[in-house]
Amino acid sequence: MDRFDIAVIGTGPAGISAAITAKIRNKNVLLLGSRELSAKISKAHRIDNYTGLPAVSGAELAERLRAHLDNVGVEITDKQVGAVYTMGDYFALQCGEEMLEATAVIVATGIVQAKPLDGEDRLLGRGVSYCATCDARLYKGKAVAVLGYSADSAEEAEFLSEIVDSVLYIPMNDVFPQERPNIRVVREKPLAILGDRSVTALKTDGGEYEIACVFVLRDAVMPDKLISGVETDGPHIKVDLQMRTNIRGLFACGDVAGKPYQYIKAAGQGNIAALSAIGYLNEIKKEV
Amino acid sequence: MDRFDIAVIGTGPAGISAAITAKIRNKNVLLLGSRELSAKISKAHRIDNYTGLPAVSGAELAERLRAHLDNVGVEITDKQVGAVYTMGDYFALQCGEEMLEATAVIVATGIVQAKPLDGEDRLLGRGVSYCATCDARLYKGKAVAVLGYSADSAEEAEFLSEIVDSVLYIPMNDVFPQERPNIRVVREKPLAILGDRSVTALKTDGGEYEIACVFVLRDAVMPDKLISGVETDGPHIKVDLQMRTNIRGLFACGDVAGKPYQYIKAAGQGNIAALSAIGYLNEIKKEV
Repeated sequence: MDRFDIAVIGTGPAGISAAITAKIRNKNVLLLGSRELSAKISKAHRIDNYTGLPAVSGAELAERLRAHLDNVGVEITDKQVGAVYTMGDYFALQCGEEMLEATAVIVATGIVQAKPLDGEDRLLGRGVSYCATCDARLYKGKAVAVLGYSADSAEEAEFLSEIVDSVLYIPMNDVFPQERPNIRVVREKPLAILGDRSVTALKTDGGEYEIACVFVLRDAVMPDKLISGVETDGPHIKVDLQMRTNIRGLFACGDVAGKPYQYIKAAGQGNIAALSAIGYLNEIKKEV
Repeated sequence: MDRFDIAVIGTGPAGISAAITAKIRNKNVLLLGSRELSAKISKAHRIDNYTGLPAVSGAELAERLRAHLDNVGVEITDKQVGAVYTMGDYFALQCGEEMLEATAVIVATGIVQAKPLDGEDRLLGRGVSYCATCDARLYKGKAVAVLGYSADSAEEAEFLSEIVDSVLYIPMNDVFPQERPNIRVVREKPLAILGDRSVTALKTDGGEYEIACVFVLRDAVMPDKLISGVETDGPHIKVDLQMRTNIRGLFACGDVAGKPYQYIKAAGQGNIAALSAIGYLNEIKKEV
């Protein structure tokens, strides 16, 4: 397997900026995230303080970021990272059933705006999953629920419906899965995930549904669930001024690295993270 | 006198970004620096990693920053700050003979690339000056030297020549003062500033010149000479992730706040500094 120099997780301004700086310094870069970029960018009505681009619309900024990636020759790999494992002198990134490797990792996943559901933390890995492609097979022939927060949740529900028995789909945005006999869409508010040792039901403001798994498909997951051992402060990864985390070779930038939540701040931190990651690559080259 | 909410010192990407964010949050902003912006920007041949503006020339980036300032309605006040004084609940900024006031200050002055000359630190304030408009009168009728590093050094030498007896001008860039009977331009390398209790001569690789003052006109001065009591680390002001310094109400961003020296990083930090300054304004409003 190819080992990338630097894997960047996230396609908001922070991740894109990091990938651009790493690429123009001739690093072998893996940029993981949605090809639609961060939904938050495109949806922004108008951004007044992206320095150098006065009164830019979210859609235009997204277009410019995409054009910049094209210009330097970075492609987006549209895969969701389920977990990052620290392997000593490299990192393994679990993307569905695939494992990818990189010497350094830059986390630019944004932040989870929502509070976890009642029962979500407690039952994570025991019927609560953040990744349909990773865990679908575990629920073959069973009933599952999908809480569709992210732009591609609907698509993931369709994928799930081909493997599991039935999908209860709760849309948390405006995207719906195609009509299929075993997908049921209900517009209710999820209240709690129930179960003692593993998930048994989802409770909503409309009732209780017996299911074996709840797929909570947000755009971002809590960083300490993504990377075991990373030091966090609430929803943020702790970084220093050089965007270093407590794990050597792992860097963070953008919203996940703390407030303020601003596009130009994210882009600036992405640049710092990339240069720090390059510094790290040079360091470990000397150590070998 | 008007007291500004926020004074921003420096017109590189950090200072401009700070001023833009502060202005769109309806703060009363004073942006101090050269109308030509930071010379370093305009002179950059091509910048590949200013996220969103692929392969932008320095001149074009400067034009875009200027257009953004126009767009939000921030004017550049073309004055050089000689010193910043901490006055308790506000700051006083000495600009020549004028004193300006601001509740919060953002330092975005860039960094001094050059090492100080032999004798420069020792004789600062005793014949070594960084500000022609501030100190010209002290040398009325005397011979002075100007080391012209910054873009407007030549102009300052012309101003000096109207007050002092004679000006020895050493150009450190490509800009020269107008021909005047009492300005002598010599293309020599300055080696040391001589004098026991005060400056008596300038030593160059071409000889020794008896003078009463050496005006060292760089684009930036060392931050601890600009702001007494600010905590520094070499040429950098120490900041935290929110761009706070050890002095309450004083923030720093861009090159002066540490490496890497990158345009997009500077713009990002300017944004953070502005939001932190606004937070500070809200805090002290509550305290009153």
